[in-house]
Amino acid sequence: MSDARYRHPISPRYLEVDRQGVVFNMWYLAYFDDALAGWLAAGGLPYPQLLADGYDVSLVHTELDWTAGLAYGESAEIEVGVDQVGRTSFTLVFEVLRAGAEPEAAVRLCRGRTVYVVVADDGSGKREIPASLRAVLEAG
Amino acid sequence: MSDARYRHPISPRYLEVDRQGVVFNMWYLAYFDDALAGWLAAGGLPYPQLLADGYDVSLVHTELDWTAGLAYGESAEIEVGVDQVGRTSFTLVFEVLRAGAEPEAAVRLCRGRTVYVVVADDGSGKREIPASLRAVLEAG
Amino acid sequence: MSDARYRHPISPRYLEVDRQGVVFNMWYLAYFDDALAGWLAAGGLPYPQLLADGYDVSLVHTELDWTAGLAYGESAEIEVGVDQVGRTSFTLVFEVLRAGAEPEAAVRLCRGRTVYVVVADDGSGKREIPASLRAVLEAG
Amino acid sequence: MSDARYRHPISPRYLEVDRQGVVFNMWYLAYFDDALAGWLAAGGLPYPQLLADGYDVSLVHTELDWTAGLAYGESAEIEVGVDQVGRTSFTLVFEVLRAGAEPEAAVRLCRGRTVYVVVADDGSGKREIPASLRAVLEAG
Repeated sequence: MSDARYRHPISPRYLEVDRQGVVFNMWYLAYFDDALAGWLAAGGLPYPQLLADGYDVSLVHTELDWTAGLAYGESAEIEVGVDQVGRTSFTLVFEVLRAGAEPEAAVRLCRGRTVYVVVADDGSGKREIPASLRAVLEAG
Repeated sequence: MSDARYRHPISPRYLEVDRQGVVFNMWYLAYFDDALAGWLAAGGLPYPQLLADGYDVSLVHTELDWTAGLAYGESAEIEVGVDQVGRTSFTLVFEVLRAGAEPEAAVRLCRGRTVYVVVADDGSGKREIPASLRAVLEAG
Repeated sequence: MSDARYRHPISPRYLEVDRQGVVFNMWYLAYFDDALAGWLAAGGLPYPQLLADGYDVSLVHTELDWTAGLAYGESAEIEVGVDQVGRTSFTLVFEVLRAGAEPEAAVRLCRGRTVYVVVADDGSGKREIPASLRAVLEAG
Repeated sequence: MSDARYRHPISPRYLEVDRQGVVFNMWYLAYFDDALAGWLAAGGLPYPQLLADGYDVSLVHTELDWTAGLAYGESAEIEVGVDQVGRTSFTLVFEVLRAGAEPEAAVRLCRGRTVYVVVADDGSGKREIPASLRAVLEAG
């Protein structure tokens, strides 16, 4: 089951690594955004298509728990999972796993959980989750 | 009481505002980092001094709840509060308030809560909260 | 003369400093953007007003020469000067000076030169420099 | 000849696109840094290896000329070329090409030229270009 989940590859940019030698915290939200787009595309809905259809998403809640850092030169994968699907909102979970020699040796660096609300791309507010997006969420 | 809390001013950079016309979510973590440093400096402990003393902090948990967006040209303040203080970790809360015509008309845009662990600046791991930092946390 | 020039204060964010212990190169373009906005505001034209009037600017050329780095905890000032003013474009120069004990002890860290084109904020292309902006450029 | 050059793929992040609907200027310096690392890796010298060998690079000059913007959902390639190689410094050129239906229909969005100085990773200053890096520069 878990092995079937979409995994989004990440390689930190040099600039994302701070004085401490690990990726600065805020970039994880950039990675989650990248992972959302990659996951949707893998599910058949490239994000630019969602925008072209008149929809976008807004974050209303996110939480992150870090257990280890990611250094420059290391790579990781973000496993994307669906936690909840409502009428206008949905919740994804993100597990950031540093690649190990063996898949089972992967180390979890960070766990994220984000609640998104679907909004109109023209700024006019909340929208029901469109069928195209609901299909990916239900398959995920 | 609340009025006595430190408030860190923020003005979004043009580049922080995305296609939706509001600050992209990750920059709030940059703002909280700025607010942490501003709050410590106001309490008598500039962050560079903390580093010079051999300490830094690492995030182990953060959560953010957004209720409204911040556009380019708008300004806001981040009220910093102390939630918990332990032996090696402490928790701060951040209220992002968009300035209104009257102080009581301020609109809360985002609420953050972050758990920090004190670490050695040389990468050797966790440290007890030093007295200089504890003093600011207890006064806060 | 030079002393009368607008100087925009900058204090690097912790996240802008990389493994080398100095601000990563790209953030200088963020600083120049901040300095442009600060300089225009000081000249009587806040950037949000320029946008509200239907104008924005686009970079067509920029060049940067670095002679030293800026560490976390250090502060600097960016002196803004007008190099050229055309019909639809203008050129600014930016001198990034690290504060010294004495004004004459300031160290130049970076020199930038940027050519901007005025565009319509609705994406419809180039525009002549509006009078409000021209006034600031001519006074600068 | 030109066709044989390394091309680094880029897809803008949602957050890199500003109110104007195109990638904000500073992110091009992030892209060039990514392209440098990709080009070195393709030449047999992953950047983390260069760091492990005790070397890093510092920018002393960069210049960028933009002719068009890159929107979210569009992708581009950065062609990397070697302009000059000295004793401690080298110069690369970057051509950012938006993918077209046909290779010859690619549109040049930006041209960059950057002068790098090789430095010791421990902060002790300039170094001669090491043999591993010189080999990639001479092959490039």
